[in-house]
Amino acid sequence: MLEKYIKAARREVKAELVLKNASYVDVFTGEIRKGDIAVVGEKIVGTGEYEGEKEIDCAGLTVVPGYIDGHVHIESSQLSPEEFASLIVPRGTTTIIADPHEITNVCGMAGCEYIAKASVNVPLDVKIQLPSCVPATPFETSGAILSGKDIEKNITNSYIFGLGEFMNYPGVLLCDKDVIQKLEAAHSAGKVIDGHAPAVYGHELNAYLCGGITTDHECVEKEEIEEKISKGMYVHIRHGSSTQNLGNAKYITPANMRRFILCTDDRHAADLKEKGHLDDALRKIVAGGLDPVTAVTCATLNAAECYGLKFRGGIAPFWLADLVAVDNLENFKAKYVIKNGKLVAENGKPLFDTSKRYLPANVLNTVHVKDLKPEDFILNVNSDKAKAMTIEPGGVVTGCEIVDIEKANGDVVVKGTDLLKLAVVERHKMTGNIGKALFKGYGLKGGAMGITIAHDSHNIILMGDDNAAMATAANKLKEIGGGMVLVNSKTGEVHSLTLDIGGLMSSRDAESLQRDSRALIEKAHAMGVKREYEAFMSLAFLSLAVIPRLKIVDKGLFDVEKFAFTDIEA
Amino acid sequence: MLEKYIKAARREVKAELVLKNASYVDVFTGEIRKGDIAVVGEKIVGTGEYEGEKEIDCAGLTVVPGYIDGHVHIESSQLSPEEFASLIVPRGTTTIIADPHEITNVCGMAGCEYIAKASVNVPLDVKIQLPSCVPATPFETSGAILSGKDIEKNITNSYIFGLGEFMNYPGVLLCDKDVIQKLEAAHSAGKVIDGHAPAVYGHELNAYLCGGITTDHECVEKEEIEEKISKGMYVHIRHGSSTQNLGNAKYITPANMRRFILCTDDRHAADLKEKGHLDDALRKIVAGGLDPVTAVTCATLNAAECYGLKFRGGIAPFWLADLVAVDNLENFKAKYVIKNGKLVAENGKPLFDTSKRYLPANVLNTVHVKDLKPEDFILNVNSDKAKAMTIEPGGVVTGCEIVDIEKANGDVVVKGTDLLKLAVVERHKMTGNIGKALFKGYGLKGGAMGITIAHDSHNIILMGDDNAAMATAANKLKEIGGGMVLVNSKTGEVHSLTLDIGGLMSSRDAESLQRDSRALIEKAHAMGVKREYEAFMSLAFLSLAVIPRLKIVDKGLFDVEKFAFTDIEA
Repeated sequence: MLEKYIKAARREVKAELVLKNASYVDVFTGEIRKGDIAVVGEKIVGTGEYEGEKEIDCAGLTVVPGYIDGHVHIESSQLSPEEFASLIVPRGTTTIIADPHEITNVCGMAGCEYIAKASVNVPLDVKIQLPSCVPATPFETSGAILSGKDIEKNITNSYIFGLGEFMNYPGVLLCDKDVIQKLEAAHSAGKVIDGHAPAVYGHELNAYLCGGITTDHECVEKEEIEEKISKGMYVHIRHGSSTQNLGNAKYITPANMRRFILCTDDRHAADLKEKGHLDDALRKIVAGGLDPVTAVTCATLNAAECYGLKFRGGIAPFWLADLVAVDNLENFKAKYVIKNGKLVAENGKPLFDTSKRYLPANVLNTVHVKDLKPEDFILNVNSDKAKAMTIEPGGVVTGCEIVDIEKANGDVVVKGTDLLKLAVVERHKMTGNIGKALFKGYGLKGGAMGITIAHDSHNIILMGDDNAAMATAANKLKEIGGGMVLVNSKTGEVHSLTLDIGGLMSSRDAESLQRDSRALIEKAHAMGVKREYEAFMSLAFLSLAVIPRLKIVDKGLFDVEKFAFTDIEA
Repeated sequence: MLEKYIKAARREVKAELVLKNASYVDVFTGEIRKGDIAVVGEKIVGTGEYEGEKEIDCAGLTVVPGYIDGHVHIESSQLSPEEFASLIVPRGTTTIIADPHEITNVCGMAGCEYIAKASVNVPLDVKIQLPSCVPATPFETSGAILSGKDIEKNITNSYIFGLGEFMNYPGVLLCDKDVIQKLEAAHSAGKVIDGHAPAVYGHELNAYLCGGITTDHECVEKEEIEEKISKGMYVHIRHGSSTQNLGNAKYITPANMRRFILCTDDRHAADLKEKGHLDDALRKIVAGGLDPVTAVTCATLNAAECYGLKFRGGIAPFWLADLVAVDNLENFKAKYVIKNGKLVAENGKPLFDTSKRYLPANVLNTVHVKDLKPEDFILNVNSDKAKAMTIEPGGVVTGCEIVDIEKANGDVVVKGTDLLKLAVVERHKMTGNIGKALFKGYGLKGGAMGITIAHDSHNIILMGDDNAAMATAANKLKEIGGGMVLVNSKTGEVHSLTLDIGGLMSSRDAESLQRDSRALIEKAHAMGVKREYEAFMSLAFLSLAVIPRLKIVDKGLFDVEKFAFTDIEA
């Protein structure tokens, strides 16, 4: 192949594809340059003056390297990898570091393998990080457990790129044997380890890093960012749907710039469709004042360097021909997207077919519960004051508020108050576990809602003011094999949306799924769910026992700061 | 091991070694920070406040990461790897990317293996680049040939780090089959390829880079540097004895900074001893106006990134504990050098023993020539004007001057002129080849000098104004098994210095070798060699047929620009 590149570079033969008359971002020197970009096979072979078998006129456009998403859970889009690609590739993303943490928590290695195999037929490089924390905590029941031994066995798989975000930072600090085995296995295999260590500082951060961990996407404070970078970490600028820290971009200096990369972590299909992916992050951080070439460099070369992806993330001979021609470095509207040297999207539309989607049996039918009854949701509290969960809008950090409660028939009365019942019903092993809590201020009235996405073990999480509606909701989720449900006590109506892949994602096309999803969300708001919350998705994070402060899992109420269960009684 | 790091990082146990009260360079943010640096095993485990089993007070000193020499031929020091380490480690260099191109040209893979094995017992990481161009050109006779097939076979050796400087750029441009095989083999093995492409621009540079080549240490012009960096290359700032381009540092900008690294390429023992190694380069580029933290970053993190050396080149938890405590960032005088967590040099003196040096039989006795006679050096020129080589002082670029010649007895008369005879006597295969030329302006009078270092095939190169003295010189070199020689026609004195390892390096200690070497060089100057030349070493580059313009090899006079032999007749 080298011969073909060299001959075309020297113009002895025409290049296969030439982006003519381009302005392009040179991430190596920070300049914007002019010239044709010649491509042969999957490589750029030269910049300068070239003729091609096929030519695309890029006059008036600016070409940038394809974007690299440094950390993403595809599952959060509720789409199959194929449909996910159909939304993000036309936006300019050509490589993602994907951590299939969610589906692996439900389906084990079958989930991981599913994401890998479903990604092969789309023009998107999906680098699979082996989820490191399955389950995320030992305090909940997940569909699978990946022990140290399992990590050791699987980390060397050829389709595994690295070790996914190491959320169990207490386990690292305490030298948990299983944790150490996982980290050592990744190092032995020479693989990169992603981090996740919100608000870990000083000697504890040193200790965490001694696990050989490279990145963090959780930090938001200037001091935390500065300390993490100064200790050798790469820091992600995150543009998720619920979790965002685009503000991190304001801490970029010329001296620390190369340690910032971009990611989306968790981003919904609706946002991908309507607002965009990394293109939207770029648009926003540039609007926020960051030099556009610096922004592009973070989204491309920096990420490639962080993850050891050689000859990727720049426009230069022998570098991967992942290219995006955008209108300008303000809008970042992608006119053409080239992946591995082929035009794969134009004017925001994919030029590849995603209608044939890989769908193995072992990621389907994953909701295993006995039939639920209204009395399963009785909440027995032995005091007049109880802990109620709250959530800070726009984030996943929860609070704890002490509330006065009324009781009747051994149950807490929530109707007519701003309290709601929250329940996590275990759905993998049929343990019958139901964790219960109170939530204040979500707004839902006269029914129940539920979803089989409940980070990170993805049991059924339900919220409601009516035990019967909550039981109906759970039973409906079982019936449809996972998804979202909304039950109206007054009308008896039950609305649902099926997420057949692990109860997390749909095998349907992005467009129809999104339309139905939006309709269901609107119905939830119509039942009172405040618009400052993301209806179902904010619910899905109330069980995430690695993010402060109070969380609910199938085994009970959990105090993240104490890393222990806690009583509901205040 | 991770457990030990983590526990020490958290201060549950004392660190093994702590650099107390340090100021240190944070290459990630460009800041100078304060704190203790804690070390366990070969790793830094933390910065902050620490206690250690052993503590070194670094108050008043500044700690920087150990320097990385991005490209060096150890052979140019004329020292064994052990003795080389004894000079450079105390200066602060802890990792070198070593290309044993010279000894491999003489001894084949045995030379390469020798450098690798001799380096194991010194506290210096020697990353061995498999020499890519043995011989450098097909126009000369070398001791070994590494074909594409040989490269394919050897590149996957565990002791081989990458593929050495690809000097045969015409071969790349012309898609020479053997060249392509070498490049493809390196890519298949996932190994980095160093470049060497002086004054290659535009489409030709694109083509060269399509070989997948990463670095260049030859460029000196602003435009060339800018183009090479903009095309994804790393550019070396070179501090050799003969070849220098420290001036490249003035083209560093905040935006392109990360693509600059430091190297020494070819540096003599005397310079290493008296002036230093990368410490001297740092001193000089900082004196020249470069921000010292930027300079340090080029010498450390940038080089580590260029060569994919993870967790190296920065002061951070889990990063390799290669540390240098210097007096300040102006003098860069190394007070303490830590390699892999151990104190290995103090106050410029090595704390490791290099008296036991590895010396295998297959790198000794490498001068294979028949006895030479005075008539072997008769130079028969069929014209009155001839091409005479010249050399630009301070470099290795030669010129061609047309000179009038006198003849007598079928030989050119050089005595009483400013011309000298130059001869390259093949010494590997006993072919009897002698290439002859004229040189103008070296200054030597009344005798001959010679050396078995003659880049890159390392035949015997001789210069003189007396055929008999030239024959004596060659025979002496044979007798001593390689080295340098000076013959005084008037007194009959023959002075020599033995370089027993491949005729290139000495198995002796650095100090006594250097003393004797200096004495011999002085004798050469006493015989008229101009002080603007480096006596023997300038001679050694007159056969380097990859550097413009006119060169002499065992097969004859070579025009580098035409890449073909040329007649001496003008």
